[in-house]
Amino acid sequence: MSPRDDVWVLTVGDELLRGEIVDSNKAFLSERLLRLDLETGRHVTVPDDAGAIEEVMREAVGRARVVLVSGGLGPTRDDITTEVAARALGRKLVRDVEVLEGIQGFFRSVGREMTENNAKQADFPEGAEILPNPIGTAPGFMLEAEGALLFFMPGVPRELYRMVDEQVLPRIAARLSGDRLVRSTILRTFGMGESTLDRELSDLARDDPDVTLGFRTQFPDNLVRVVARAPSEEVATAKLVAVVEEIRRRLGPTVLGEGERTLAEIVAELLLEKGKTVAVAESCTGGLLTGALTDIPGSSGYLLEGVVTYSNASKVRDLGVPPELIERHGAVSEEVAAAMAKGVRDRSGANLGLATTGVAGPGGGSEEKPVGTVVIGLSDAEGTVVHRYQLMRDRTRNRELAVHVALEWIRRRVLGIEIPGETFPRATPAGRRPA
Amino acid sequence: MSPRDDVWVLTVGDELLRGEIVDSNKAFLSERLLRLDLETGRHVTVPDDAGAIEEVMREAVGRARVVLVSGGLGPTRDDITTEVAARALGRKLVRDVEVLEGIQGFFRSVGREMTENNAKQADFPEGAEILPNPIGTAPGFMLEAEGALLFFMPGVPRELYRMVDEQVLPRIAARLSGDRLVRSTILRTFGMGESTLDRELSDLARDDPDVTLGFRTQFPDNLVRVVARAPSEEVATAKLVAVVEEIRRRLGPTVLGEGERTLAEIVAELLLEKGKTVAVAESCTGGLLTGALTDIPGSSGYLLEGVVTYSNASKVRDLGVPPELIERHGAVSEEVAAAMAKGVRDRSGANLGLATTGVAGPGGGSEEKPVGTVVIGLSDAEGTVVHRYQLMRDRTRNRELAVHVALEWIRRRVLGIEIPGETFPRATPAGRRPA
Repeated sequence: MSPRDDVWVLTVGDELLRGEIVDSNKAFLSERLLRLDLETGRHVTVPDDAGAIEEVMREAVGRARVVLVSGGLGPTRDDITTEVAARALGRKLVRDVEVLEGIQGFFRSVGREMTENNAKQADFPEGAEILPNPIGTAPGFMLEAEGALLFFMPGVPRELYRMVDEQVLPRIAARLSGDRLVRSTILRTFGMGESTLDRELSDLARDDPDVTLGFRTQFPDNLVRVVARAPSEEVATAKLVAVVEEIRRRLGPTVLGEGERTLAEIVAELLLEKGKTVAVAESCTGGLLTGALTDIPGSSGYLLEGVVTYSNASKVRDLGVPPELIERHGAVSEEVAAAMAKGVRDRSGANLGLATTGVAGPGGGSEEKPVGTVVIGLSDAEGTVVHRYQLMRDRTRNRELAVHVALEWIRRRVLGIEIPGETFPRATPAGRRPA
Repeated sequence: MSPRDDVWVLTVGDELLRGEIVDSNKAFLSERLLRLDLETGRHVTVPDDAGAIEEVMREAVGRARVVLVSGGLGPTRDDITTEVAARALGRKLVRDVEVLEGIQGFFRSVGREMTENNAKQADFPEGAEILPNPIGTAPGFMLEAEGALLFFMPGVPRELYRMVDEQVLPRIAARLSGDRLVRSTILRTFGMGESTLDRELSDLARDDPDVTLGFRTQFPDNLVRVVARAPSEEVATAKLVAVVEEIRRRLGPTVLGEGERTLAEIVAELLLEKGKTVAVAESCTGGLLTGALTDIPGSSGYLLEGVVTYSNASKVRDLGVPPELIERHGAVSEEVAAAMAKGVRDRSGANLGLATTGVAGPGGGSEEKPVGTVVIGLSDAEGTVVHRYQLMRDRTRNRELAVHVALEWIRRRVLGIEIPGETFPRATPAGRRPA
């Protein structure tokens, strides 16, 4: 008999097996469990069918230390995960009075009648520990059976995510860690490939068996997961802090931030904190840079204006780009990008003017300016920065990457960090290891 | 022994079980198989581990008529799917000379040396039928074993998608349909909820056992899958055409198009075909409408200009909106949206001027103009259309929905279809059934 896997993840739902939605819950769950140093051995999805659910659940209980089940806790006839779990594990179903009152209260408050279908959401297998769901009607529950720890959770992603972080992970950490505590975090990086990151950092994990590093791409960023283990919380936290500090020292400005915040969120917070305003003139990114800057609540506090000047005429009319500059250098050029950035800053009165111009593809390339050529310009009180990049992707990703680079320029400029030149979107100069 | 499932889908890869990427291949595969009227009974993901792959493969062969396996065909040491399949099914591995020559040719052409690892991509289980991969180095293959039809495919999505459509589906259709041929298509709809669609159309499937309808949301569109079966290709095609025609008759302009094209693609094609140009003035959508219109190659043929006028000052300065209009009615108003649309059309010389203004949320709402209030304006030679909508989503989806509604306005205006008023983004007036 082979040793048990750490984790099996089961998801339940006909809609998943019809391909109606992409099941992102499994990736979420496995990634979260890695933060507790637990690896997933199998993902299985079964239909809303009692036989199939029971079969897989019994198999999982015999094969994994932790079984995560998501879906099938709703009030409809299709939602049978709870009753099948009770049968598969030989438990009676018990109605929880407190949960029932909560459901009744909800229906009273919206003036609707509660049906028996709704009441069944208050039924749990005997011995289950109920996991509150503050943003939905279906609570989750935890069970221990035959040496496995099982968690049952709703399939609605935002309910699941919250329940995992608030209810599930702390319980797993408390029960499985024994005398070893785990602390982890995520560092968001941009500008260095995964293999370079690995080369720069791998000794940190190799030299300390209580540190694990993992890498994950969230285009165009790379995320570094850092896990530290120790016999006590204090030591684990101290170890994590020390490793994160060393990573930041080695990678420098390649690290955008710690945690889940996106680059746009980081930039927005920084602009608000420093009281800086931005105006944007876009050509190849076609509105997406302004779109990213305005995706953040409160963006009217820093974004004054965006202009998409797709045509040469609008570059001249709206931004005051001298027509002879376009004639001499072409619309995709350092000269024009600089004039666009200055033009949009002048007309808006913003602290920073940003401009993009380029050949997103698939058409429009030339020998001198192939598809993927992007020129970014920045203008502020200190002067103008402009660089040309050669991106190597398809139209959609060239545009996304150009937006990302422009956001990163804002971050660096506001923080007073140098804006790197040509090779930037593929690799920044690597951090050096201590000698 | 229960009857066999139609399909099991197995995906292989440590990266999936670490949650490093969301596995969208499974949903793709299951949706494609439904077009052949085949339902998926189980999705399973296993690590790059010989024991786990073999175990699941043996189980699948005994339980499903069609087994789809994706991943693990690459040249690295981790890629062991082929050799494990051979062992699990009791076949020898045979090197295919033609495939080997193709790989050798590839390495010659890029001036690199071919390693034994690369050569193993020319090995296939005895009796396998090779499935060409014109856009990657790993061919797929088909095997028949113990009453099941197995397909092995690369995990890279674009290689997989193409191989499925060109190689896999035709083979399954030829072998499994027997004397029943299946034809299917997808209709993209916008403005009608899934339950309304179901109510409007369900009799078509109920009255004809050889017709199946399925619904899938691709926010904010709903896709209708139509499957028709018949003893011959001609009859199946004729039945499909007739059902699609009847659906189009009932749903009217709710149907955006047939096939995989997005609304932005449909609108772009229409604008180019009719020789119409567009200019955009955005407030709440913050650049995303222009971004959607410029996401399509060749967009400079119809998109003249986009302006993001987030502040009142820029609405006045850049679009000529009279300041007293903003003072009297507020920036989020029919009057201002109309003036923005006319202003951007006038200054750009475009045929159509589009404008968005609204309260995307989460802040900024008032009793009169709550979060989700969006006003859209359109100006062309025939006049001005303006409507106010109340969207009910979070910031991100309110913005996406407003962009979608504006694109749909362009489509309708260019086609001469009426643009509906307030209830539009939630439900259009339903198509009527024949009496």
